[in-house]
Amino acid sequence: MTAKNTLQTLIDQTKETAVLQSIEELLNWDQRTQMPAKAANYRAEQITLLSGMIHQRTVDPRRGQYLTELAEEVSSQSDHDGDVIVLRLLKQYEKEKKIPLRLVEEFSKARVMAHQAWVDARKANRFSDFAPHLETIVKLLREKTDAIGFQESAYDVLLDDYEPNTKSSDVASVFSALKADLVPLISEIGESSCRPDSSIIRRPFPIADQQTFGTSAAKAIGFDFEAGRLDITHHPFCCTVGPKDCRITTRYDKNYFNSAFFGILHEAGHGLYEQGLRADQFGLPTGEYCSLGIHESQSRLWENMVGRSKSFWKHFFPLAQNSFPQALANVPLDHFFGAVNDVKPSLIRVEADEATYSLHVIIRFELEQALFTGDLQVNDLPAAWNQKYQQALGIHPDSDSNGVLQDVHWSEGLFGYFPTYALGNLYAAQFFDSAANAIGDLDLQIAKGEFVPLLNWLRSNVHQKGKSLSASDILQSATGESLSHQPMMTYLREKYAEIYSL
Amino acid sequence: MTAKNTLQTLIDQTKETAVLQSIEELLNWDQRTQMPAKAANYRAEQITLLSGMIHQRTVDPRRGQYLTELAEEVSSQSDHDGDVIVLRLLKQYEKEKKIPLRLVEEFSKARVMAHQAWVDARKANRFSDFAPHLETIVKLLREKTDAIGFQESAYDVLLDDYEPNTKSSDVASVFSALKADLVPLISEIGESSCRPDSSIIRRPFPIADQQTFGTSAAKAIGFDFEAGRLDITHHPFCCTVGPKDCRITTRYDKNYFNSAFFGILHEAGHGLYEQGLRADQFGLPTGEYCSLGIHESQSRLWENMVGRSKSFWKHFFPLAQNSFPQALANVPLDHFFGAVNDVKPSLIRVEADEATYSLHVIIRFELEQALFTGDLQVNDLPAAWNQKYQQALGIHPDSDSNGVLQDVHWSEGLFGYFPTYALGNLYAAQFFDSAANAIGDLDLQIAKGEFVPLLNWLRSNVHQKGKSLSASDILQSATGESLSHQPMMTYLREKYAEIYSL
Repeated sequence: MTAKNTLQTLIDQTKETAVLQSIEELLNWDQRTQMPAKAANYRAEQITLLSGMIHQRTVDPRRGQYLTELAEEVSSQSDHDGDVIVLRLLKQYEKEKKIPLRLVEEFSKARVMAHQAWVDARKANRFSDFAPHLETIVKLLREKTDAIGFQESAYDVLLDDYEPNTKSSDVASVFSALKADLVPLISEIGESSCRPDSSIIRRPFPIADQQTFGTSAAKAIGFDFEAGRLDITHHPFCCTVGPKDCRITTRYDKNYFNSAFFGILHEAGHGLYEQGLRADQFGLPTGEYCSLGIHESQSRLWENMVGRSKSFWKHFFPLAQNSFPQALANVPLDHFFGAVNDVKPSLIRVEADEATYSLHVIIRFELEQALFTGDLQVNDLPAAWNQKYQQALGIHPDSDSNGVLQDVHWSEGLFGYFPTYALGNLYAAQFFDSAANAIGDLDLQIAKGEFVPLLNWLRSNVHQKGKSLSASDILQSATGESLSHQPMMTYLREKYAEIYSL
Repeated sequence: MTAKNTLQTLIDQTKETAVLQSIEELLNWDQRTQMPAKAANYRAEQITLLSGMIHQRTVDPRRGQYLTELAEEVSSQSDHDGDVIVLRLLKQYEKEKKIPLRLVEEFSKARVMAHQAWVDARKANRFSDFAPHLETIVKLLREKTDAIGFQESAYDVLLDDYEPNTKSSDVASVFSALKADLVPLISEIGESSCRPDSSIIRRPFPIADQQTFGTSAAKAIGFDFEAGRLDITHHPFCCTVGPKDCRITTRYDKNYFNSAFFGILHEAGHGLYEQGLRADQFGLPTGEYCSLGIHESQSRLWENMVGRSKSFWKHFFPLAQNSFPQALANVPLDHFFGAVNDVKPSLIRVEADEATYSLHVIIRFELEQALFTGDLQVNDLPAAWNQKYQQALGIHPDSDSNGVLQDVHWSEGLFGYFPTYALGNLYAAQFFDSAANAIGDLDLQIAKGEFVPLLNWLRSNVHQKGKSLSASDILQSATGESLSHQPMMTYLREKYAEIYSL
């Protein structure tokens, strides 16, 4: 075969594997939103069969051979589609090839056991029931990082699965700067005598009206409902069943506005990214999201920088008052704006406000790092957790269930995943700044309910890049800057200065 | 391999193929109920890839070899699971093997073209636009019947795809007896001075209340909503996504009671059959429905023999009055019973009442037969259609769209399919008779809303048999009789004698 033919064969096979992956996504989506309860066992068989087929195709040695041949002619700096495809797939192939099948299988079993143990331990509020499973997970992940190999730290290998080509030492230094600035800001806010009336958003908001209002907001920012859906699940998510089929979910609380509404904006932000990827490259690195951090930057940008801005509510608040007259008829815009931006240190990450959220993430990142350097033992995790919450947020978990056991991630073996949440916040602030500079009157546009220029900026500077560039290269090319916590801090300071008269 | 090992290998492979088929069912279900519009193209790619894999596995020559080896040791009369599996799969394999790939592909293309042509021709009310496509379909089907071979008639081969081991001459003779009795019955009804007030069921029935009421009725007759769902589609259907995952749909008309309610009972009847098959044999002939006629017998039995009976409404009418006070508060049970059983010859099969329905089907069967004997040419179809409607039902189609072009089946190459609808009616009446004899006070039980004994009788006499027996053998073993139109006629005469004072 000529190199051109080899490349085309590789692309065809990869796209075909992506078709199977997209079908697996549908099986997962259906399981979480539609499937009747008794179908669970057979659904597991369906997913197992498909996963097996996908895995077989991914590690096929012929594929490795094609990739190696093609890579010889490619410069590692190239951003041509074909080159990007070869380099990204080769990297993934070589990484997977290094992990022994025995380890894959052991890890897979350990996750199932650990997940169930976590569910039970969290219910019983007993970390010790979960600890041996977590030890196994950490042990197996260490074997994995050893098998793959690393230069600076084992944790880099874990991080690379979610935030490719990002060094944990870089993350650590930006997180430490962020923490150093966030802690005093949150103290200042706590000491302010201004307190938004947060009861405003805890009034009756009929669910049907929340659905209509949330859907219209998702539409307004650009989420295409002819190429997507919005459904209800307890744990909100965004999943992609095809290049024109992005499905998001949310949950409704009839006495709380924020959960569903900002949840919808958040997932719609993820959805806009997926809908903005190059559809003709679906299933290839050129049509795939760059990293989880970049993905999260899109959801946080729309949820917070847009959705929690004064400008946004200048446009949407009168509409919200029409939709929820009982709750909002006599509320002034400023009070509502304060209520949706109220800052209060709390125990649970997923319920945290915009200012404290990153601290929850940084705590997990620090603990994960310590576990993998060996500075921290699994059994000492609850104490270390509680101490860090006390130091960073000034609060002490009332139980392990509301502390170290609150998140599902570790039970599923997801180490190196948490930092992408806070990276998302930082990227978002940097993107938003640059978009505002490029567009000029972004605030005015948002206040008119006009989101096309912002979306277009994100489309061309982020979405359309796919995985052609690394996260740091996208950041550099879109903003002219490298990773920094400054734009995030400037943004937060400005917002809270107004609300809390800092 | 020993014969036992060969059988196990065959079973494992067949079950694995069934997993892929069940995933394809989910893709289809999702497409018809959930999928966003723009996802259609990629959905086609997903389905095409999966179909290809399924086809490859089905015609795998190693499979044929296993089957041939195993079949040598099996008696064709055996009803042991292993033997049934081998015989049914071998028959299917040998049938498919005889059809040249060229023909499969040509037919597949012809169907796509014919379907679109049918949609357009129906809209334009111009049969001549559809005729050449229908000619191609008939020509290719004749090639198929020639390739497979037959003893009595080519039509037998077509029928065998839907009603295995059933001879069209047998169907023809029972249909002709049925027609000879139905035509005068319908005349008598037409001449009766009693006329039910059919406006009762054309009053406002709020859709949300129809959903609740219909769902509760489906639950009451035994449809398991933890192993199934009910959704909304324009064309109602029942599909099976796994052994504990049967999904039915209906459509709602806010000013018409029958469409959704009897549609739900009909599809739930199909669903009860699917839910009653042996779950551990899912994907094998032992856990598969016997024939389309037997499938239809279950839907028609619950829709009509149960759901349109006086006993049924003795229990459900007070509940219906509670659910639909505006429409039914002051309606006597007898009037309602008459209204849901009103007989009136009409042009459209899917809207036909219980008495005239089979005549619609018999007309199609007669025309299909004539097309395949060569006694009728495609171009003469509209005239022959209209003449038969005049003769059997005393009405003349006002257009081809409401006549020969009304059904989708022929455009999809489904010849030999229609007769299973009327066979379903006949089987249903025979089953219902025998169940009533076996149970004793079936009417009383139905009047108390007690459906378990009837369902149990169907479970053990029909559902649990799967494809182990042919339709005629199931009929024989369950009722002690062979196919007959008498129970159906007795049942109809009795019902209409009361309503129309015949």
